[in-house]
Amino acid sequence: MPALSRWASLPGPSMREAAFMYSTAVAIFLVILVAALQGSAPRESPLPYHIPLDPEGSLELSWNVSYTQEAIHFQLLVRRLKAGVLFGMSDRGELENADLVVLWTDGDTAYFADAWSDQKGQIHLDPQQDYQLLQVQRTPEGLTLLFKRPFGTCDPKDYLIEDGTVHLVYGILEEPFRSLEAINGSGLQMGLQRVQLLKPNIPEPELPSDACTMEVQAPNIQIPSQETTYWCYIKELPKGFSRHHIIKYEPIVTKGNEALVHHMEVFQCAPEMDSVPHFSGPCDSKMKPDRLNYCRHVLAAWALGAKAFYYPEEAGLAFGGPGSSRYLRLEVHYHNPLVIEGRNDSSGIRLYYTAKLRRFNAGIMELGLVYTPVMAIPPRETAFILTGYCTDKCTQLALPPSGIHIFASQLHTHLTGRKVVTVLVRDGREWEIVNQDNHYSPHFQEIRMLKKVVSVHPGDVLITSCTYNTEDRELATVGGFGILEEMCVNYVHYYPQTQLELCKSAVDAGFLQKYFHLINRFNNEDVCTCPQASVSQQFTSVPWNSFNRDVLKALYSFAPISMHCNKSSAVRFQGEWNLQPLPKVISTLEEPTPQCPTSQGRSPAGPTVVSIGGGKG
Amino acid sequence: MPALSRWASLPGPSMREAAFMYSTAVAIFLVILVAALQGSAPRESPLPYHIPLDPEGSLELSWNVSYTQEAIHFQLLVRRLKAGVLFGMSDRGELENADLVVLWTDGDTAYFADAWSDQKGQIHLDPQQDYQLLQVQRTPEGLTLLFKRPFGTCDPKDYLIEDGTVHLVYGILEEPFRSLEAINGSGLQMGLQRVQLLKPNIPEPELPSDACTMEVQAPNIQIPSQETTYWCYIKELPKGFSRHHIIKYEPIVTKGNEALVHHMEVFQCAPEMDSVPHFSGPCDSKMKPDRLNYCRHVLAAWALGAKAFYYPEEAGLAFGGPGSSRYLRLEVHYHNPLVIEGRNDSSGIRLYYTAKLRRFNAGIMELGLVYTPVMAIPPRETAFILTGYCTDKCTQLALPPSGIHIFASQLHTHLTGRKVVTVLVRDGREWEIVNQDNHYSPHFQEIRMLKKVVSVHPGDVLITSCTYNTEDRELATVGGFGILEEMCVNYVHYYPQTQLELCKSAVDAGFLQKYFHLINRFNNEDVCTCPQASVSQQFTSVPWNSFNRDVLKALYSFAPISMHCNKSSAVRFQGEWNLQPLPKVISTLEEPTPQCPTSQGRSPAGPTVVSIGGGKG
Repeated sequence: MPALSRWASLPGPSMREAAFMYSTAVAIFLVILVAALQGSAPRESPLPYHIPLDPEGSLELSWNVSYTQEAIHFQLLVRRLKAGVLFGMSDRGELENADLVVLWTDGDTAYFADAWSDQKGQIHLDPQQDYQLLQVQRTPEGLTLLFKRPFGTCDPKDYLIEDGTVHLVYGILEEPFRSLEAINGSGLQMGLQRVQLLKPNIPEPELPSDACTMEVQAPNIQIPSQETTYWCYIKELPKGFSRHHIIKYEPIVTKGNEALVHHMEVFQCAPEMDSVPHFSGPCDSKMKPDRLNYCRHVLAAWALGAKAFYYPEEAGLAFGGPGSSRYLRLEVHYHNPLVIEGRNDSSGIRLYYTAKLRRFNAGIMELGLVYTPVMAIPPRETAFILTGYCTDKCTQLALPPSGIHIFASQLHTHLTGRKVVTVLVRDGREWEIVNQDNHYSPHFQEIRMLKKVVSVHPGDVLITSCTYNTEDRELATVGGFGILEEMCVNYVHYYPQTQLELCKSAVDAGFLQKYFHLINRFNNEDVCTCPQASVSQQFTSVPWNSFNRDVLKALYSFAPISMHCNKSSAVRFQGEWNLQPLPKVISTLEEPTPQCPTSQGRSPAGPTVVSIGGGKG
Repeated sequence: MPALSRWASLPGPSMREAAFMYSTAVAIFLVILVAALQGSAPRESPLPYHIPLDPEGSLELSWNVSYTQEAIHFQLLVRRLKAGVLFGMSDRGELENADLVVLWTDGDTAYFADAWSDQKGQIHLDPQQDYQLLQVQRTPEGLTLLFKRPFGTCDPKDYLIEDGTVHLVYGILEEPFRSLEAINGSGLQMGLQRVQLLKPNIPEPELPSDACTMEVQAPNIQIPSQETTYWCYIKELPKGFSRHHIIKYEPIVTKGNEALVHHMEVFQCAPEMDSVPHFSGPCDSKMKPDRLNYCRHVLAAWALGAKAFYYPEEAGLAFGGPGSSRYLRLEVHYHNPLVIEGRNDSSGIRLYYTAKLRRFNAGIMELGLVYTPVMAIPPRETAFILTGYCTDKCTQLALPPSGIHIFASQLHTHLTGRKVVTVLVRDGREWEIVNQDNHYSPHFQEIRMLKKVVSVHPGDVLITSCTYNTEDRELATVGGFGILEEMCVNYVHYYPQTQLELCKSAVDAGFLQKYFHLINRFNNEDVCTCPQASVSQQFTSVPWNSFNRDVLKALYSFAPISMHCNKSSAVRFQGEWNLQPLPKVISTLEEPTPQCPTSQGRSPAGPTVVSIGGGKG
């Protein structure tokens, strides 16, 4: 039986706007007030995470995560409610094949329901209602909906909430619809927002009493009236600033600009440069000094929806002192799709640091693929996988006997990256996932704390796989630094710091030449296998078909690799690193099966009435 | 809350045996009587299907199928109950990874529960109880358990009951176990039985009044005391027997031998042979006349668990008359694992036929792969797929404008076949599955009525794929007639009969030679690509590794094919059939998602107590 709630008749100011909008047509007041529905609001914790959904900031999502219940409480604040709202999740932020909740009115009554959209974007009621509405509340800020959703519902139509990026979709219904099925794009303002929903449940370490802070902020700049801006700003450390440990950092976002500041990073410049010119301007400006290109060593990275980042209590990230540059570069990505003009901003990152150095220096290591064109993705692929290895031989040589502890990770690809995963392999068996993002977006690269610190022993293997979508490309996409080339990298943050900065691989170049010879023989000599042709040119001339594609795949999963087992400044550890065998994996990790919710956790199989309309405009 | 039932204290005779067995140890009478439990017995229909499970016939399964409820009612008759019984399903009849129900006693109390076994065969209670116990009944024959199970449970641990073969597993508990987890192989007699559980729900057509019957039966032979016997028997049609239509056939199984008669087929001999010597003996006997090898045209095929086979009302299978042999060969497969001696048998098949020919002759067409070594499976593969095509060009040429109607299908491979599927493709899109068996066994080849007649139009494509397991082989398995070679065939039964008897394909032989050249270049010339080497020899000399395997796969899914679009006696239809392009499939059928049962359909999350023990032996 649907839980039925009735509402007192107290139209709020935003309701008056809506009534005005439809006064000639439907002229209905939507009246929604506080109500306690089935279930109850979460007691154990408030909703610690917040993110604006739309660029105007009229929808704001707050949430918490319960790992024991395997469920999320969502609270959606709707600031100027029109005729309803739609919220949900989909693979990559499309409104097609999305898992949705919808609050809508038919003009008389307002309803809340779990819904889904098919591959054409048509919305349907979900026969299994897995979003459980807990509370509807009217506050001075707007209407808030509190609801709960298990991570997995065991309904094959539903989205499975996993670690990593989640693409939230939202829509603002501008007019009543006679039914859920009648909702269509014309009366709907829509968008997407990326976020990590399943934040790790790590207690915040206490700061030491001597902790200092340093703000690295844009100096009250005017946000350019264009969709995308990367703003660069150089900050100089005080002269004689000695070696310190960064132990925490957090975002400083100028109030009112929460929906515009997409991500921010603080980089340290190369120690070789004794001076870097001051600069504040778009990173692609012609005025930008070239030396800023040498400021690429990440100190801190934040993206929308993330909170403060803490180092483990026994480690800190060294900065300052001899051998370290005094110059920091702040990069702020402003995302301004509505081209709002004249907005000032001083957003940035606050570093917390201490002079009392902690026991361990934290380090950053690159796993994945070497930036080389020998690793390429054929065109028109929906899910082509490239894999980079950090071999047992390299970890045996470079890691201390007690191993290292990875506590955070930042995944990185260029534009065609869709998934990234790093798996730890011990004694030939997949042992543990270091970090995985099945809905990775190159537009959303955060440093993420791991839920669980992963220890890597000497002799372990780390395998990083990236899945690419090149459906809209006509030519092969090769590995490289260019934005139209690809990368597959996991920057892992770990301690204690070692000399190993890079543990990456690529297919052996000689075997790749065998591939070109082989497909030439099969396809009547289209590819130049002459010595003067570059690998990129060779890939460009491949006539792509299923055979050439499949054989390339076969090559990548068979041919020996060339390892980069490097210290800083590209010095390799001693040893033979060419023609290394591919690490063997004899057993793989089981896919985790979601805990299916019991029927008590579900709402009745139909929409819940949440309001009775009243009055004519 | 578990439903608790109490039982009157009336030990049956089989209980006394059990008590005797354990008199020195546990000495407990299991007392089980009639009880009505939660739910109710099926009203709509009795249980029309029956199969013995063990070779001694102490376990017998009856069942029905409800396609509206998507559920099966099972009734398990236990003839001489010892300490319990175990019944279930698994991928290929292993006790590992099986989905089970268990009736067991700890010495005091008897329990019934839904359970599962892990990859080591260890049994566990299933937290989601999807087998619903409806009735426990004591009859003069033994104990019957009536229970219900949905096709799919949406529990990832559970077996999904699909069309095609199901491997039933059973076990007889010979002693009490203190818990479900304590059950182990030592006190357990186990086995498997293959059956098609999801019988099509086709109403039996009425027989015409002039229908005659003809019994093709073994002439009271003695079943050899060995595990496997194929018995051959030649039957002669009366002289001057004119053309008739077979419209139905059914098994005749000698009473008492139900567990021994595994399958039976009736073949017609080749029309060219004016006489065939009479014979009754094992098919592999040295005494068997060579001419019997020319009796291979299937007229009827039955396997354990199947019921009568009916032709559609508008069609019949022609036999007798001019151009048709007067000799039939009966083949009976006796499966006698307990090596029972001195058992006589007269099993066979009863043909129902009519002289009043029906509107259409039924025909049999072979789809799949040509029997040629160019189609090969590398060794040590767990699921290698080979695919055969019946192209649009062939159906365009050979089928009547109104198409043909497939009403039954018999899938066929040799020993390494594990799955078979035929899909109809229309306008490049997968349209409909003709027949599919995801648990196919070469030891269980029935002619199966299709749930739904599939119409094939001129221009349609039929794609037949077989999945093979060659894990235990060291060398490639090539296509061919030998029992250690492989086939991939779907014999489809259809009407109206056409001249097209064979619509099969194989990879183009020239492209296969390109493959051998290519892997030679990659692997240092191990394969003889010289003209005198046969394809089988070439495959035998391939040094198998992932690359050579993957490239063979790539070849099979890319290279052009050679089509056999043949009339009877291997005459091809006119046209160019070599170097044909592979049919393109632009969209595939969606996997059907099972309807998840509601919580009402489930039993409580624990074992159900079904008896209270009493008395000492």
